[in-house]
Amino acid sequence: MQCPAMQNPRVGRRSAKAAAQQGVACVHIGGRVFASRVSGQRKDARAASAASRAKSVKVHATATIEKPAGPTVTPSNGGAGTRVMIIGGDGYCGWATALHLSARGYEVCIVDNLCRRQFDLTLGLDTLTPIATIHDRVQKWAEVSGKYISLQIGDICDWEFLSQAFTFFQPDHVVHFGEQRSAPYSMIDRQKAVFTQTNNVVGTLNVLFAIKELKPDCHLVKLGTMGEYGTPNIDIEEGYLTVTHNGRTDTLPYPKQGNSFYHLSKIHDSTNMLFTCKAWKVAATDLNQGVVYGVRTEETMADPLLINRYDYDGIFGTALNRFVVQAAVGHPLTVYGKGGQTRGFLDIRDTVRCIQIAIDNPAARGEMRVYNQFTEQFSVNQLAEIVSREGRKLGLEVVVQNVPNPRVEAEEHYYNAKHTKLVELGLQPHLLADSMIDSLLEFAVQYRDRVRMELIKPAVDWRKTGVKVNTMGAAVAK
Amino acid sequence: MQCPAMQNPRVGRRSAKAAAQQGVACVHIGGRVFASRVSGQRKDARAASAASRAKSVKVHATATIEKPAGPTVTPSNGGAGTRVMIIGGDGYCGWATALHLSARGYEVCIVDNLCRRQFDLTLGLDTLTPIATIHDRVQKWAEVSGKYISLQIGDICDWEFLSQAFTFFQPDHVVHFGEQRSAPYSMIDRQKAVFTQTNNVVGTLNVLFAIKELKPDCHLVKLGTMGEYGTPNIDIEEGYLTVTHNGRTDTLPYPKQGNSFYHLSKIHDSTNMLFTCKAWKVAATDLNQGVVYGVRTEETMADPLLINRYDYDGIFGTALNRFVVQAAVGHPLTVYGKGGQTRGFLDIRDTVRCIQIAIDNPAARGEMRVYNQFTEQFSVNQLAEIVSREGRKLGLEVVVQNVPNPRVEAEEHYYNAKHTKLVELGLQPHLLADSMIDSLLEFAVQYRDRVRMELIKPAVDWRKTGVKVNTMGAAVAK
Repeated sequence: MQCPAMQNPRVGRRSAKAAAQQGVACVHIGGRVFASRVSGQRKDARAASAASRAKSVKVHATATIEKPAGPTVTPSNGGAGTRVMIIGGDGYCGWATALHLSARGYEVCIVDNLCRRQFDLTLGLDTLTPIATIHDRVQKWAEVSGKYISLQIGDICDWEFLSQAFTFFQPDHVVHFGEQRSAPYSMIDRQKAVFTQTNNVVGTLNVLFAIKELKPDCHLVKLGTMGEYGTPNIDIEEGYLTVTHNGRTDTLPYPKQGNSFYHLSKIHDSTNMLFTCKAWKVAATDLNQGVVYGVRTEETMADPLLINRYDYDGIFGTALNRFVVQAAVGHPLTVYGKGGQTRGFLDIRDTVRCIQIAIDNPAARGEMRVYNQFTEQFSVNQLAEIVSREGRKLGLEVVVQNVPNPRVEAEEHYYNAKHTKLVELGLQPHLLADSMIDSLLEFAVQYRDRVRMELIKPAVDWRKTGVKVNTMGAAVAK
Repeated sequence: MQCPAMQNPRVGRRSAKAAAQQGVACVHIGGRVFASRVSGQRKDARAASAASRAKSVKVHATATIEKPAGPTVTPSNGGAGTRVMIIGGDGYCGWATALHLSARGYEVCIVDNLCRRQFDLTLGLDTLTPIATIHDRVQKWAEVSGKYISLQIGDICDWEFLSQAFTFFQPDHVVHFGEQRSAPYSMIDRQKAVFTQTNNVVGTLNVLFAIKELKPDCHLVKLGTMGEYGTPNIDIEEGYLTVTHNGRTDTLPYPKQGNSFYHLSKIHDSTNMLFTCKAWKVAATDLNQGVVYGVRTEETMADPLLINRYDYDGIFGTALNRFVVQAAVGHPLTVYGKGGQTRGFLDIRDTVRCIQIAIDNPAARGEMRVYNQFTEQFSVNQLAEIVSREGRKLGLEVVVQNVPNPRVEAEEHYYNAKHTKLVELGLQPHLLADSMIDSLLEFAVQYRDRVRMELIKPAVDWRKTGVKVNTMGAAVAK
């Protein structure tokens, strides 16, 4: 069997050459062939990670690694050529969504400045899973599915770039994942707080201007977060609240209370979008997404080169994904504070489906529609209990450790958030049944040799956000 | 009498030399001496306005000009050395506030990047009143009052500058007027929308970081706007709304709906501030100010070099001030749309008093206090009626003209905004009695030869905010 790195004239030769230069051998795993780094060279590999990852895909070769699912994608044409620009399409949710839509006949253009990869390089972090470059990803996707995803690498805060990408692609829908999406990252230092707010707010402003000026009938699907609502002592509705006050009634934007500069940036976006829907008749869907867990979708598992990222570190890792990795490597599950913090959660397979539902049922011109995009709510303690129980079934020793809460947040509170609108439009949730945890745990166990233990603990204290630039190097070394 | 331009060794000689170079003569008006441009040279003067205004003060010499009030300031020491940094202290509200506090014994530091003057230069606008440079202003103030105002010229978005200014001055209170404050300006084009939001949000973030890191007990007095609330169909409360929903009750941030990128930027600020009050125990007072009218305060009238700016143009001029100038020059009062738009208003003499009240009664650490800072509410039609009636009493021919509304806003709506908290703390409002309009009209009549008629009309259409950079030159020429 020819090494797959040689099969493609554009991507393959480059990868094979790089593999040879960097001591990477083409090996067979589970009947398929991948470029795989020889065991024992991991430290060197990390040092050269920027260059090496851009050229080859590392799959950790262990006896336990499962055979990738193989090309099980069954392309359809339900999307019927609908043009969808996915900003942030190289990220965790964005990549899975791009493939999901492409597989279903939507014409997909990924717009990304690859800053998520740059954050890892800068802060010394890494995804649990070995991810390919975006160029290799879309190339492999074309081979696997016969579908072409176009790629525009650039920064949406750069109007010259964004306007050209818009003019070129003429999207019917823009799905906007393209924001700095980590609350801890936004709380590292002043520069990163300012970056998070300007990057997110200006990027979204530019998208709104692009729609107004270049494609007024383009539907904006914007990713917000359930974290915008905070933890009010009343039910959380989907975007709006009908209030009767002193005998008069109005339906108003739901009052928001963000708990990090990241969450606040999403509130700013929502506030800006509402105005442009009124003033410019923009059609927008604001998806207040819960915490996403899982990593596998049908499409991302179709080939190792398509695998999604999986963040487990204290900056970008989110609650459940982080617990699962902690359980897999025998690290105590780090519950912040009392653990009564309750949030909405959803499987990444539901993320991609929700986006499709929003596209298939677009907002009207002038409408700012808000959906709460999650399927179940859990407290941190509940999650820890579930992961502990399921981990023990797999023979893992799992203990729970309450650590001082690095965040400023209520640790015991009322929480009842509505999430019926997407279900009414056809969402059939994947619930966090034990089997889901099982498979996620098994997945994490497969890759556990890639885990760097020093990245697991909480790294950013909300009360200590400083003005000195912090690249976390010092924090990690401690 | 020696020309006052020669009296001061630092400021005066420069002014006198510049006056000689530019054909400006020192003339006597009403018993006092000013540098005054010879009539007929106004166009040339405008062309050289940047240079000339930096060097000399032009007072339009007409027979009707009143004698300036003279040094009637009666300094006191009620402020008792309390250190107040006034960001935006060269602007309309900031300058009046700086003098008001300085006269009362507060130790004042003005921080300003002079961008408001740069906006006028860029867009070809001008204040009705001839204002001196900030350096001349503070110099003259020292002569008139014996009080020293320190000056830090720089941009608060530049952390290096702001942190040094903070470290140097060690403020007990920061009064933050330092934002781009025009709704039409923010709607001119994409660049100015982005500038408005980044300038305002980043500046405020930097101030919050400066307080946290450099002076944690410093009280922030931040200028917001009543426009943050929009025009809900329920009573507007002061910052927070107690909501009972599905049997549960909470007090939440009042839901905001801004109607321009400027108003939205202030909402973003408020949202950010609330978080830092919780997370970092910042003490903050958010003053949601109404539309300010008037120009004279005791201190700004103490000398012509201290006179405040007065904006009447379609970008920076606000409703009542603009109507007054229109009446003074025989231009129809331009009511936007139906004129049922109702807003809160206050005299600039109340602005300065409200700031003092906020300082004298500071917020506690961790408290985010919100006051609605206005004294009366009027519809645009009501204002037009009052100005028409009072103008006719002065022999002016005043007509009202309904023009197409360049903004996207409700033109007939419910409006009942609470504003009791500052009164409870001691504010004694100057109400818009007929006499106030009288004196404001007389003031505008004095300076009416400086009015440029082409600047009066609305210049920015909310629906047409474009992506091409617009310096308004073309719009003004039309």
